[in-house]
Amino acid sequence: MADNALDGLIDALRRLPGVGIKSAQRMAFHLLQHDREGARRLAGALTSAVQRMHACARCHTFTEAEVCATCLDPARDARLLCVVETPADQAALERSGSYRGLYFVLMGRLSPLDGVGPADIGADDLLARAADGRVEEVILATSFSAEGEVTAHALANALRARGLRVTRLARGVPAGSELEYVDLSTIAHAMGDRR
Amino acid sequence: MADNALDGLIDALRRLPGVGIKSAQRMAFHLLQHDREGARRLAGALTSAVQRMHACARCHTFTEAEVCATCLDPARDARLLCVVETPADQAALERSGSYRGLYFVLMGRLSPLDGVGPADIGADDLLARAADGRVEEVILATSFSAEGEVTAHALANALRARGLRVTRLARGVPAGSELEYVDLSTIAHAMGDRR
Repeated sequence: MADNALDGLIDALRRLPGVGIKSAQRMAFHLLQHDREGARRLAGALTSAVQRMHACARCHTFTEAEVCATCLDPARDARLLCVVETPADQAALERSGSYRGLYFVLMGRLSPLDGVGPADIGADDLLARAADGRVEEVILATSFSAEGEVTAHALANALRARGLRVTRLARGVPAGSELEYVDLSTIAHAMGDRR
Repeated sequence: MADNALDGLIDALRRLPGVGIKSAQRMAFHLLQHDREGARRLAGALTSAVQRMHACARCHTFTEAEVCATCLDPARDARLLCVVETPADQAALERSGSYRGLYFVLMGRLSPLDGVGPADIGADDLLARAADGRVEEVILATSFSAEGEVTAHALANALRARGLRVTRLARGVPAGSELEYVDLSTIAHAMGDRR
């Protein structure tokens, strides 16, 4: 039977998103039996990340510096500001190679039921950031879920009220997909936005 | 974009079993954004577990002591020795309340294709443990997968060659299930072992 240090490890692993008791047990067992070096490395990485990563003063993404490398990159088009929910969404846009402007990372999305309001996604900082005199267009790239849409809608209203041009990523049929298998709401949007 | 400490954390999380790049990103993001205390706690739990947990000298499960509490429990029936693959399997048997004997934990199972041989599951230690003069019956409770069956078969042969009585958990229809939804191999085994 498990003793205390093992139970403590399983409890700590269970706090990770998407990890239940079975996964936590499997992870703890794997680390102790087959990958103690991996366990030590993970402990070090956690400590290091918590100590060194904080929010970029300009775009709110995680960075070790005062301002992140993307915000400081002079090759970026400072007239474009793309608003995303998470650093992972930003990374996906970067991988697409379709965007060369700057970013603002909300680090979440509006979710009144979970108590996530405008202050939690840095809405005031976004409004100040977008009003730097160089930004000409704010592209809202929040997700196309209900909460992402609500977030985009609220931010668009506030940004437009300050005279900024606001756009939204196009909705449509994903590349490589057959119409037969695309959900009807997507087809309806693609039809409405046809060009 | 991610800086080094964040990438390091994502890489370290990806080494956990069942965690891909997407899950690792979500975990790292969650810890840094919403649960830094959880990240510190996990780092401490990892370090503590790696330092303090090692194999019980008698049954091979994880313990902080020389010999685990179960092996030292005088209320246990020392005539019964149940062989399981993992501490989680042992915990499941304990929860069932159906067993009061002692255990031997293989910490794995034979898997020639993965290079896991008898030495990796402590087969020699099991044979020595079962020959202590008190054990009268060895119950093989390895899983009923192909590798678990191979492990049980090999151990049964070695244990019987030493004159020990060896049994295997019964196969059959799970409690509460309707026959219609039970797989055919299980039904065939349940029919063959009917009583």
